[in-house]
Amino acid sequence: MTERSWWGWGTTDRALSDDECVAAAAGLPGLPAQPRPVPAVADLELPAPRIAVPASLPASIAPDVRAGHAHGKAYRDVVRSLAGDLWTAPDAVAFPRAESEVVQLLDWAGSAGVAVVPYGGGSSVVGGVEYRGDGPWLSLDLTALDRVLEVDRVSRAARVQGGALGPVLEGRLRPHGLTLRHFPQSFEFSTLGGWLATRAGGHYATLHTHIDDLVESMRVVTPVGVSESWRLPGSGAGPSPDRLFLGSEGTLGVITEAWMRLQDRPRFKASATMRFADMTTAMGAVRAISQAALHPANCRLLDPGEAALSGASASGEPVLVLGVESAVLPVDGRLTELLDLARDCGGTVAPSSGSGRDDSAEAWRAAFLRMPYVRDGLARMSAVVETFETACTWDRVEELYATVNAEVATAVEEVTGAPGMVNCRFTHVYPDGPAPYFTVVAAGRPGSELAMWDEVKAAAMEVLGRLGATITHHHAVGRDHRAGYDRQRPEPFAVALRAAKAALDPAGVLNPGVLIDPV
Amino acid sequence: MTERSWWGWGTTDRALSDDECVAAAAGLPGLPAQPRPVPAVADLELPAPRIAVPASLPASIAPDVRAGHAHGKAYRDVVRSLAGDLWTAPDAVAFPRAESEVVQLLDWAGSAGVAVVPYGGGSSVVGGVEYRGDGPWLSLDLTALDRVLEVDRVSRAARVQGGALGPVLEGRLRPHGLTLRHFPQSFEFSTLGGWLATRAGGHYATLHTHIDDLVESMRVVTPVGVSESWRLPGSGAGPSPDRLFLGSEGTLGVITEAWMRLQDRPRFKASATMRFADMTTAMGAVRAISQAALHPANCRLLDPGEAALSGASASGEPVLVLGVESAVLPVDGRLTELLDLARDCGGTVAPSSGSGRDDSAEAWRAAFLRMPYVRDGLARMSAVVETFETACTWDRVEELYATVNAEVATAVEEVTGAPGMVNCRFTHVYPDGPAPYFTVVAAGRPGSELAMWDEVKAAAMEVLGRLGATITHHHAVGRDHRAGYDRQRPEPFAVALRAAKAALDPAGVLNPGVLIDPV
Repeated sequence: MTERSWWGWGTTDRALSDDECVAAAAGLPGLPAQPRPVPAVADLELPAPRIAVPASLPASIAPDVRAGHAHGKAYRDVVRSLAGDLWTAPDAVAFPRAESEVVQLLDWAGSAGVAVVPYGGGSSVVGGVEYRGDGPWLSLDLTALDRVLEVDRVSRAARVQGGALGPVLEGRLRPHGLTLRHFPQSFEFSTLGGWLATRAGGHYATLHTHIDDLVESMRVVTPVGVSESWRLPGSGAGPSPDRLFLGSEGTLGVITEAWMRLQDRPRFKASATMRFADMTTAMGAVRAISQAALHPANCRLLDPGEAALSGASASGEPVLVLGVESAVLPVDGRLTELLDLARDCGGTVAPSSGSGRDDSAEAWRAAFLRMPYVRDGLARMSAVVETFETACTWDRVEELYATVNAEVATAVEEVTGAPGMVNCRFTHVYPDGPAPYFTVVAAGRPGSELAMWDEVKAAAMEVLGRLGATITHHHAVGRDHRAGYDRQRPEPFAVALRAAKAALDPAGVLNPGVLIDPV
Repeated sequence: MTERSWWGWGTTDRALSDDECVAAAAGLPGLPAQPRPVPAVADLELPAPRIAVPASLPASIAPDVRAGHAHGKAYRDVVRSLAGDLWTAPDAVAFPRAESEVVQLLDWAGSAGVAVVPYGGGSSVVGGVEYRGDGPWLSLDLTALDRVLEVDRVSRAARVQGGALGPVLEGRLRPHGLTLRHFPQSFEFSTLGGWLATRAGGHYATLHTHIDDLVESMRVVTPVGVSESWRLPGSGAGPSPDRLFLGSEGTLGVITEAWMRLQDRPRFKASATMRFADMTTAMGAVRAISQAALHPANCRLLDPGEAALSGASASGEPVLVLGVESAVLPVDGRLTELLDLARDCGGTVAPSSGSGRDDSAEAWRAAFLRMPYVRDGLARMSAVVETFETACTWDRVEELYATVNAEVATAVEEVTGAPGMVNCRFTHVYPDGPAPYFTVVAAGRPGSELAMWDEVKAAAMEVLGRLGATITHHHAVGRDHRAGYDRQRPEPFAVALRAAKAALDPAGVLNPGVLIDPV
């Protein structure tokens, strides 16, 4: 049995050792010689619970449970936890075992005036699972609702409960030869309901990038009743009900079930790596690929800094990783088409490692899953290390790439007093534009890390907003992105959303402060 | 110059002659020997206009203009127009030449208590562009707002005004080598704004079937302000603003502009026709194709009756038409993959006509565009002839196909006193299910046609709802589908939609009666 970390990412057995923390921070100047110790929950002060969940409903006020549900897993959450700050921990954590208990919990919360924050798997990196109000609040953990209730092999769909974590879901689909193939970085520690509530981005770099497209129907408990859409492969009957709840981040209801569109497990895979002289050439190639309707499963462009950081290439060139997969037909011809296209755009195929074409993909995947643990180790060293992502149209991407890099680098240097690292990769690409994903690493100062990051983040939000790029491509809005979201969202849509919220959640208990403020 | 028909589909020069009407009805027993004459608007009585649009705003109360905007283009609209029934004609028709005039018209209508019904191109077949209340109403015709305002060749997108009819739009994109490739049957007579407001289905049989997926951003005039979403290739920032307005059918606002995702014009095309022993085998093949991620542009399955009616085959076998296209790469290999898959599922490739593989596609397209004119000719002969469409998951499609055919055929026989024809084709297919499209043709009785069709339609709506199939795949809800839509739509979503409507349209003037009733 592995144990979930209450303060950092993932499981405790995979956290960096003290020595590993020191080694990870080797390139950063002026940091402490030793990592900050991880406090024990038993040594920390938690505010007394202000609520009493009815005894008929499953809830816990145990300190370790409350501590583990106090924050999400952003850098700022980790820093706060390492500092022992649990003052905003939930008053209680509920673990409903049936949808009827979700209904009862919402009924009780509405009458008791208790805010309810759906926890998903707790992997929010945008302040989506905490509460910043003054009143009492309940963290709603659905991970006991994790079953696959029905499988329709013919239509390749399954009815799944909202609390299923990624590995639980895939494990239960595997005997049927089916897979959702939604593999966000948080896969092990996030739930289906969380993916849906936050419009999570997943495995596919093109085409069906967000979980939105994989939804056939949803079941959502709202304070005024249960909403269940019909299982439909396509429909033109009014605005899509599912699309209102997708991205609602727990403000309109709690997603208890969904019929999800599944895939057959891929039998054929092929991938290759290309290099380019510079980012302009590389972006041109990725644009050509994204507009050719070839739909590669993987199309990940790493800028020179990101290529070096991830170990993909130290040559100072951008690297493009292309991958294709199919459950039906061999894909070598598809890969050849993609490589020819990229070659026409100035790319050269990088020599393969020789021992099999999936080696580099596996190496990337291992490093990808390790990244958040490294971030936590760096946080213990008082480094400032975080990511943010966006999307914009192709006509603006060169300006965006240059401007964000420059302005965020300037902010890092101004805030920390020394140059930091700002890298970029494209995680998903579309015919009309890419989704750039930035990583920032800099040396912080013990006790000032949060303030430093908040300033850098504000600069990043400002430049994204100014350039008309989305405040989030797949990390969601939560509380941390409110300023950028308010700028981006059309005001009449906000008017509609506030009205919908007031009608569905008249007591205003559902994740207050996320997306919108009360009317 | 061709003239739009005020009573029937399309342009007057393409309407069937009296002789053609008689010939078209040859197979139907007991009909009149001659078609009902088309009345002249000048001979018909129109109610006096009850409103005076401010002189500063462009509007018309000319009888022919009001007559032409009185109804949509459903069978029931044609029958009513042929009967000279213009009692529900709009009091006036406005033709705004700028978005500011749309704003002024909505302001005036709100203060004057006048209902506003966006007309699009007027091709609604679901009662979407008429008004069934007692008060005065204004038909809002946006076809003067038909420009392409910006083209972004790099991102392959264009900013287009909502009133652009299909040919206008494509004509203005052609010099840029771009195309929207959205070709509904109504293409010539429907507008971009109408497509967006009704979630129109288009050219592609798989993947991007609805216009929804082709939208990058939208600009919508609501009574409380203009909503404009950002141009984003992808975003995870809250529920999608565009998805609330897509399918809102004029109830939440008037779509004045949209940035649309475009395609390069296809350079390579290939198509082929396959036959199957029976519908079960054919449906299995279509399912296999739809689940293989090959994304054919065309994948149209005709059942034996439909194959015979459309002239595709008189052999009594179902026919599958497959087509692939690309702007980048030859597609013969893709077609071979599709045909191999279909062959493995029991299909045989039909012999080509020999003179070129696009012959049958062109013949189909010509017949497809001719169908509504034939329908009008049959309506003049007092036949009952109409279509309806739906979508359901693959696990239920055999039952749906059999049950709908049987129950609608029974209804036709009961209502008309003689057997009629019920055919089916799949117009669009998805990995989790197809979109069956039914055609009904029967002999009616002069004066009773509407009542007959309404009974048949009620039977069709009942069976679709009972089987959990959508009330509409791409024809929209309008007023004719309200009963089915109310059954299908989750009640908490209706609560949210009503609240959003009340907030955006406090005077309740926007297309009242469509989708929802006032709070």
